[in-house]
Amino acid sequence: MTPALIDHFDVSRSIVVVIDILRATTSICVGFGNKADHMVPVEEIEECRAYKEKGYLIAGERSGVQVEGFDFGNSPYSYMKPEIEGAKIAITTTNGTRALKAAQVRGAKEIVIGSFANISVLCDWLAAQNEHVCLLCSAWKNNETMEDAIFAGAVAQKLRFNFRPYQDTNLIARTLYKAANTRKRYYLRNSSHFNRLMHLNLQEDVKYSLRRDTHSVIPLLIEDKLYDIVPHLNDWQAFKASKAEKIETK
Amino acid sequence: MTPALIDHFDVSRSIVVVIDILRATTSICVGFGNKADHMVPVEEIEECRAYKEKGYLIAGERSGVQVEGFDFGNSPYSYMKPEIEGAKIAITTTNGTRALKAAQVRGAKEIVIGSFANISVLCDWLAAQNEHVCLLCSAWKNNETMEDAIFAGAVAQKLRFNFRPYQDTNLIARTLYKAANTRKRYYLRNSSHFNRLMHLNLQEDVKYSLRRDTHSVIPLLIEDKLYDIVPHLNDWQAFKASKAEKIETK
Repeated sequence: MTPALIDHFDVSRSIVVVIDILRATTSICVGFGNKADHMVPVEEIEECRAYKEKGYLIAGERSGVQVEGFDFGNSPYSYMKPEIEGAKIAITTTNGTRALKAAQVRGAKEIVIGSFANISVLCDWLAAQNEHVCLLCSAWKNNETMEDAIFAGAVAQKLRFNFRPYQDTNLIARTLYKAANTRKRYYLRNSSHFNRLMHLNLQEDVKYSLRRDTHSVIPLLIEDKLYDIVPHLNDWQAFKASKAEKIETK
Repeated sequence: MTPALIDHFDVSRSIVVVIDILRATTSICVGFGNKADHMVPVEEIEECRAYKEKGYLIAGERSGVQVEGFDFGNSPYSYMKPEIEGAKIAITTTNGTRALKAAQVRGAKEIVIGSFANISVLCDWLAAQNEHVCLLCSAWKNNETMEDAIFAGAVAQKLRFNFRPYQDTNLIARTLYKAANTRKRYYLRNSSHFNRLMHLNLQEDVKYSLRRDTHSVIPLLIEDKLYDIVPHLNDWQAFKASKAEKIETK
């Protein structure tokens, strides 16, 4: 439910799904759907800015607002621009990239990106892997957020016959999802981050972030970079190995 | 949602309500309802055992089972025995006493005990204090549990016009409560701790733990001891001060 709890779990034998519905993981999926080459999630603003010189587009957001001097912020609509195709993008966000780093530090077996934008292709892939799965909500500065919990519940509900749930958090997330399902936007009215974005006039971003299956992508972390493995689904492990090797020999 | 998150909150200006529905905080309320003089929550089994020589009854449970050589375990029914009246009781449980100690270590302004057994009197008192309130679920070894979250939601729902909610956890708990309310036992069938207790043949304990307002008590921590402040509600702070002084001068 929050990255603050990850230290209590052994994720070394798990696929960790990083979830930040409003808006980081949604935007990452949109970026790959629009054929970004790869993305580098980084924690600090200055680290992200340094990628500019290496030929990257740089995307950064803090507390919902685009960082000054960056190519774009955290809106899924930014990731639909023509320059995305083939681009290398460095990205830093308030909570999403931090959750991803937390999973990495804890030695997760694999790390993938989840959002409503790629929920079905992601769930099918998870069901086929025969591995433990940890759904990691990025939350808001360590506080649980409704929209991430609802998405985790949507995944848990879809995969309820494929996995044995671990503890009550699974049941809690599924209950929230079922309570919210038929009218998510109405329901989210009361959530804190939703209201935060509404005040920033980001209604369209919120609306977009709740749309299902807009992009058939599975962003997977290879060393420090995210790549879409959907074009290589038959042998994504070989794809991963070749990319990892390439990165290491650089 | 779990004591593992308490370090991320400043509770120094808050009343912390410790919640361990199955079964510690329910049993503590029942004990005071049956006129126990005071209770000492302790973390370790041997520390608890040492209270035997000081004239205490000792109660202890680990993973749902009574500790060998102890007067009783964690069942609310144990706290209805005639010897409870006027007794001093030392108590140690898997999660409840640990949550209480975590709140104490973090410097909570006040610490009280909540359960369905005392929900109404507790909520009325909380509403009257004009203080911040933190609802602390004891959970199960750092994993969120459905029954504690549901109780937190019941309190949050009752007090929704008295407090401004902090972040989404409040909304999450209220949603779970509403989903569960009309048929709590049916609903809890799927929860992990419920099943753990069912396997230990503790159905009656579970049933009892979901009954509302069986005892008009508010156990409050004074130094290291719990006292019921309901007989002193007009001036509970004076009662607290007198008890604290008595404890210190010993």
